[in-house]
Amino acid sequence: MAHDTQAVDVVCIGNAIVDVLSHADDAFLEEHGMVKGTMRLIDAESAHALYAAMGPAVESSGGSAANTAAGIASFGGRAAFIGKVANDLLGEVFTHDIRATGVLFDPRELPDDGATGRCFVLVTPDAQRTMNTFLGVSSYLSPRDVDEELVAAAQVVYCEGYLWDEPVAKQALRKGMDVARDAGKKVAFTLSDPFCVDRHRDEFLELAEHRVDILFANEPEICALYATEAWEEAARRVSEHCEIACLTRSEKGSVIVSAAGDHIEIPAFPVDEVIDTTGAGDLYAAGFLYGYTAGRGLEAAGRLGALAASEVISHLGARPERRLAELAEVIE
Amino acid sequence: MAHDTQAVDVVCIGNAIVDVLSHADDAFLEEHGMVKGTMRLIDAESAHALYAAMGPAVESSGGSAANTAAGIASFGGRAAFIGKVANDLLGEVFTHDIRATGVLFDPRELPDDGATGRCFVLVTPDAQRTMNTFLGVSSYLSPRDVDEELVAAAQVVYCEGYLWDEPVAKQALRKGMDVARDAGKKVAFTLSDPFCVDRHRDEFLELAEHRVDILFANEPEICALYATEAWEEAARRVSEHCEIACLTRSEKGSVIVSAAGDHIEIPAFPVDEVIDTTGAGDLYAAGFLYGYTAGRGLEAAGRLGALAASEVISHLGARPERRLAELAEVIE
Repeated sequence: MAHDTQAVDVVCIGNAIVDVLSHADDAFLEEHGMVKGTMRLIDAESAHALYAAMGPAVESSGGSAANTAAGIASFGGRAAFIGKVANDLLGEVFTHDIRATGVLFDPRELPDDGATGRCFVLVTPDAQRTMNTFLGVSSYLSPRDVDEELVAAAQVVYCEGYLWDEPVAKQALRKGMDVARDAGKKVAFTLSDPFCVDRHRDEFLELAEHRVDILFANEPEICALYATEAWEEAARRVSEHCEIACLTRSEKGSVIVSAAGDHIEIPAFPVDEVIDTTGAGDLYAAGFLYGYTAGRGLEAAGRLGALAASEVISHLGARPERRLAELAEVIE
Repeated sequence: MAHDTQAVDVVCIGNAIVDVLSHADDAFLEEHGMVKGTMRLIDAESAHALYAAMGPAVESSGGSAANTAAGIASFGGRAAFIGKVANDLLGEVFTHDIRATGVLFDPRELPDDGATGRCFVLVTPDAQRTMNTFLGVSSYLSPRDVDEELVAAAQVVYCEGYLWDEPVAKQALRKGMDVARDAGKKVAFTLSDPFCVDRHRDEFLELAEHRVDILFANEPEICALYATEAWEEAARRVSEHCEIACLTRSEKGSVIVSAAGDHIEIPAFPVDEVIDTTGAGDLYAAGFLYGYTAGRGLEAAGRLGALAASEVISHLGARPERRLAELAEVIE
């Protein structure tokens, strides 16, 4: 597929994953050694055993940065995604879904060996999601998969912290960041998960201080980054590091702080019933980045983030079911 | 898996299908020659082309009678399902989902050739579903797949009208009906779809008159069966043929008529927002059959049907997301 690299606002780099979502109670999480609200990596054998133990599920394309790309496109923004799927049915599903949303996804190779990654998402009665990821070929993402021309032409490259767990994928992210910076573009990054931050704190701090312009983090993640329990302290410190930090706080809404001294509080959008928080942070980032690259102010961009998050938590699954561009019209 | 055939209330026989659900507008249906609210069969090539044209989708196990079996199990009833999947990923998904709901599903063979069936479901803004089914190996269901012992031991065998389109599968249904009748058990049948009724009106009339004890039909289906536009006339005629007929009428609720002279009107359960009507009829049948086989009266059984239908239309997909046994506790 020939693509018009001029036309892309945001390039998202992350794991290419299909989610397998099921309801479970807290006892199930405990029995299987999961920590609620977090993500862990599992191997093929554990994936098989967990699936056998899980309740009935639905399959929905996921992957954190991929969800963000889908959200940007759903708003009408121009997004591209870089990630790796295999030449199998789930790879076909992932590719269909992200392209059908309007995201440019044009993988440079499609491995015949290995399987497309999947994430077993357990949703507890409190609507919290707990994730068990079998990465499959997603972990094979490498620098040669990163299209320099595409990244350099975009306004923002958005990178998923989860990829830091894989050495080669980490190099792919670093390449994306370097290409964007050399082209004078913005680097956005999500901390992804508090355990992920714990595993890579020093490097993530270095990224925040020297490489990342726009950081996304929820409360446990930003507190993990600065090894503090005081969210206010973490918020102050990140504002000294990043040009912009979008700090999400679940039902308390979000706060956008900036190196320029902004401290903007944005309330959460009201939702009739929170069904499943999977993708809430990803869609917040989508709304913000759509607004930001469209030239809206920080507050307007944050409100679009809150709107997108509210849509995705009102149903099972991490991709919007309704066209976000239409929802945005209603509130603007 | 060894199974306790003594323990089954209802054996459901139908297509084994994974649904691929997506939102679409009326123009998309028209452009692709679909008739809103109905089901059509498509071949592999058409399935490929339609998928490429469709928006982002979610995958959720489906199949009309399979949804009913899952609903019965979700209420806490003992259900078995007979249908055919292939030895592929969608077959694995279908098998996982129905077993994880608590349904006995123990296929006698698992073809390596051919693919598990899938149904491309387009949900329009009015929440109506329009279905395009690629049957795959589901159409290979044959009499030897019907476990006589299992059927004879159940209280009810529930058969899906859609299977009538496949000559060999039709023989499987006829075998199931014969075994149940010979064992002194009840035969339940759903007319499935108005076009399906049109294709097989004479045989379906013969079934209603001589073989079916409990018939399920919505308005277009029962009117198609008696070739009338007057629902009241169709309702009167079916009450002369079947011991019980459950006639669903969407938001107008349902009416249960019986050969014994019952005429019971059951209101629809209120729903905050109807998202997707896929599975509404299947889940109504689940609630009714669960109540019926548990010895409830017709009205109580019908109310459980309305309850189950209300759950499934409040989200995307044709299987319950919440445990119906818990919802039933609230209303009882």
